[in-house]
Parts: sequence; structure tokens; C-alpha cells
Amino acid sequence: MNLTATAKGAATREMIVERAYGIASRYGLEGLSIGELAAAAGMSKSGVFAHFGSREDLQLSVLDWTAERYAATVMGPALRQPRGLPRLRAIMTSWFEWVRANPDGCVILGAAAEYDGRPGAVRDRVVGWLLEWRKAVIRAVSLCVETGELAADTDPDLVAFQLFALIDGLHNTRLYDPDNAHALACRALDHLFSSLSA
Amino acid sequence: MNLTATAKGAATREMIVERAYGIASRYGLEGLSIGELAAAAGMSKSGVFAHFGSREDLQLSVLDWTAERYAATVMGPALRQPRGLPRLRAIMTSWFEWVRANPDGCVILGAAAEYDGRPGAVRDRVVGWLLEWRKAVIRAVSLCVETGELAADTDPDLVAFQLFALIDGLHNTRLYDPDNAHALACRALDHLFSSLSA
Repeated sequence: MNLTATAKGAATREMIVERAYGIASRYGLEGLSIGELAAAAGMSKSGVFAHFGSREDLQLSVLDWTAERYAATVMGPALRQPRGLPRLRAIMTSWFEWVRANPDGCVILGAAAEYDGRPGAVRDRVVGWLLEWRKAVIRAVSLCVETGELAADTDPDLVAFQLFALIDGLHNTRLYDPDNAHALACRALDHLFSSLSA
Repeated sequence: MNLTATAKGAATREMIVERAYGIASRYGLEGLSIGELAAAAGMSKSGVFAHFGSREDLQLSVLDWTAERYAATVMGPALRQPRGLPRLRAIMTSWFEWVRANPDGCVILGAAAEYDGRPGAVRDRVVGWLLEWRKAVIRAVSLCVETGELAADTDPDLVAFQLFALIDGLHNTRLYDPDNAHALACRALDHLFSSLSA
């Protein structure tokens, strides 16, 4: 395969994953049908399978693609903020925006609910990404203790749980109170930070 | 149909819903296949359909059955506690136990993630139950303000968001940190209550 063909193949693969993301946002990763995806991508089913060996391979690619976008839009910009509370706040507000920008649900958070009872490679990948995100949050919380912005006896594991809970809460509350969910999450974040301040 | 036949029909229907709940806990309400359910219930597919007009009818019945069990095991006992913080704490600790007792995920919370991108009767029913639960929590929080146990400027809507977030957080954190999720949720609850105390 020459370089141009490789680049074309990569672009097609990317396009398929993006379409698959759109379907998985609405119907979940388990609801991702290759037939529907092929139609959305304007391809044949075998054309889709030429790029992904199996449905599971495609599901894993959608998870990784989601995590890359999350890194680029949430963690990346936040990590350019000064260490301490500015960075931790930036992670959370960008993450709230991420939830808002995915009105049918974040594929990874959706998969967390979808795969809790389904052992296997997809579940393992979801767990892997969530643990990665948690590690980044724990690190950001620890830096707030180092800068003296959060109290010295702060437990970063507990705060990471509390912050993730706000994301999960926003994600779910949006279903039954879409008009107020975002504002409630922002107020809950402010409340949490004041209760933790040094 | 005579009375005995009616009672037998109701018992069979109940048994089918219970089996369906087990399947939906693991695979989601969308993953509920009538074939698999019939096999689990030791019936034919048409036997299942004799009790439920459609798959959607069955899905709605599973949601209502879940909500009845939730009422009986979480809200019911909690409402027998004295109004104020004892009652609110009882709601939350029983709810944490409910999450623990459903290791493959609460069907209603799972459906919240599953149906956020799927409009229709199932989504509407999920929203209906979640709003019902939220109303009960808001009422319990308001009583804590009346008893003077929570600060007079407490916003019950915000506290309900914060409490639901802890449930959602426990539900999701259990996936990637099953050994610590419950203890973290209990500590986060204590932290929240102290930050709100009058």
C-alpha cells in the first residue's frame, strides 16, 4: 500500500469512527449496528469490516476516539492552566462543557452504565479510561493541597470521588431537568470547593 | 376467567417481570430479548407475549416493578424515621444499600444512561420515576430546614442534586473501584451534611 492509500485508509477509518460515535451516543455501544453504521457512512457492511476486524474492535476504537477528544478538549486546555485551583476548576468546567456538548450522553459515561454487568474487553477499556481520568483528577487535587489552596488534610481520593459524582450527577440530571442541570452542577462545584478550602 | 386463574396469571406475570429485571440489570432494558427471557422463565415466547402485549409493555412493567421495590426497600422504611436529618440520612443509606444490593446496576439508573438519546414511552417512564424520587428527596431536605438541622438558606433543589450525584457517583465508581466506592460515598455524604449543617 503506498502512502496516499494509507492516508486515505486512515481518513476513512476516522470517518467511520466518527459516525459510529454519533450512533453510540444515542443508542449506546451495544446499540451500534454495523448495518446502520454502514448506511450512515455511505458504505457497504464489508467496507466497514475492511477497516475494523470485528464489532468489538470498532467499539474499542470508538472508546479510544472519545478519550482522545476528551484529552484534547478537556484535559489538554486545563493542563495549560496554572497548577492548583485554577487547573482543577478548568478541568471541571471544561468537563461540564463536554457533557453539554454531548447532549445524547458521553459515550464513555454511557458505556460505564451499559457494561457494568457485561465483562469483557469493552468493559475493561471503559474502566481503563475512567481510571486514567481519575488519576489525572487526583493529581490535580494533590497539587491544590501543595499550593495551600485546599486544606492540608484533604483526601484527594475522596475529592476525586466527589468531583466525578458531580459529573455523573450532571449527566443523569440532564435527563429529567435539562434546563437546570448545568447551573445546579456549577453551584454544587462552588459549594464543594468552599467546603474544602484551606 | 375465575379468581384462581386470575391469581395464577398475576403470579406468572410477576415471575416473568422478576426474570426480566435480572436480565435488564446485566444487559440493560434495550438488551432485554424476549427469547432469552422466555428461556429464563421456562416458557415459550408466545407465553411471554400472552402476559405482555409488547416488548415495550414489558420494559415499562420492569421499570414499575423496580420502582415498587425501591419504594418498599428504600423510601418506605426511611419514611418511618423521624422527620429531619434522621429521615434524610435513612433515605441515603438505604439507597446506598440498594445500589450495593444490585451489583449489576440499578435498572432505573442504568436506563437513565441508556435512554437519554432515545425518546419514547420508556424514557418518559424513567423520567417520571426519577422526578418522583427527586420530589421525595426535596421534601425530606425541606423538613431538615424546618427542624433547624440544616441552615435556613439551604436550597433543597441544590441539595437534592448533590445527593443524587452521590448515588450516581457510587453507581459509576463501583465499576472501576468496587472495593472503595461504598466507603467513599458514605464519607462524601458525611462531608456534605457537615457542610450544610445549621
